[in-house]
Amino acid sequence: MKGKKVDHSGAGCGIARALDMVGDRWSLLIIRQAFYGQQRFGEFQKSLGLAKNILSTRLKKLVGDGIFRIEEDPASALSHRYILTRAGERLCVILVALWQWGAENCFKDEDFGLVMVDKVNVRPLAKVEIQADDGRILGPGDFRVVDLGAVAR
Amino acid sequence: MKGKKVDHSGAGCGIARALDMVGDRWSLLIIRQAFYGQQRFGEFQKSLGLAKNILSTRLKKLVGDGIFRIEEDPASALSHRYILTRAGERLCVILVALWQWGAENCFKDEDFGLVMVDKVNVRPLAKVEIQADDGRILGPGDFRVVDLGAVAR
Repeated sequence: MKGKKVDHSGAGCGIARALDMVGDRWSLLIIRQAFYGQQRFGEFQKSLGLAKNILSTRLKKLVGDGIFRIEEDPASALSHRYILTRAGERLCVILVALWQWGAENCFKDEDFGLVMVDKVNVRPLAKVEIQADDGRILGPGDFRVVDLGAVAR
Repeated sequence: MKGKKVDHSGAGCGIARALDMVGDRWSLLIIRQAFYGQQRFGEFQKSLGLAKNILSTRLKKLVGDGIFRIEEDPASALSHRYILTRAGERLCVILVALWQWGAENCFKDEDFGLVMVDKVNVRPLAKVEIQADDGRILGPGDFRVVDLGAVAR
């Protein structure tokens, strides 16, 4: 993953930018709840057991960063719903990768017992992997960061 | 991603467990620096501009959680190196997915200009995706969480 001539450690790094938006345990758990179908402040609050002021701050930032959009709540004129935007939905792969890593590395002496399965064939999802454009699976030492100008097209 | 009959919202969730270990902006940035080849306290400190006490706390937790292991530093008998364990190395896919998401969603009005490429053919990596076991690319609505006992084998 080294790229010697490129400074990718600062705010110009895609990872740092992404973490500025979602690099917070609560934000990612709120997004997880949205993938589980939750849309309302009260649902997030109840399921996460989170203080209202913390949840409110996180949701405001997530809306401001374009990860949720606000829609009217057909069930209540006084309330509204938080819906994942397209950018928010694209975080799903990160949550699945975190799930798979957690399942593999965080339940050493316990029975985990849960698995993510494809709805079509009810078989476990493939492991989320880093892949080359021809499908080869890559490890941390198999790629590097370069300026776009240096890329083969 | 819904799985109605399963409680996967608490500490039994792979995502929550993973975030207990690495759901912190600084921890993920330290791990990023390790993928870039850094191993020493001073290197992390200088590149991240992080207060020594915060870095020290994070590194201790990451070692305790089995993401880094400590090795002697051949360059200095008084110092040591932080080396990613196998579990730590497996976080690479999460960082690449964060990078790709950040590149796509966090540089709207700017030129990003950097890309991760395969060392072999110098072409951009494929997008990290959720895939079924037969390789079909899946979206957030295409899978669910079930008990292991309910899985087709």
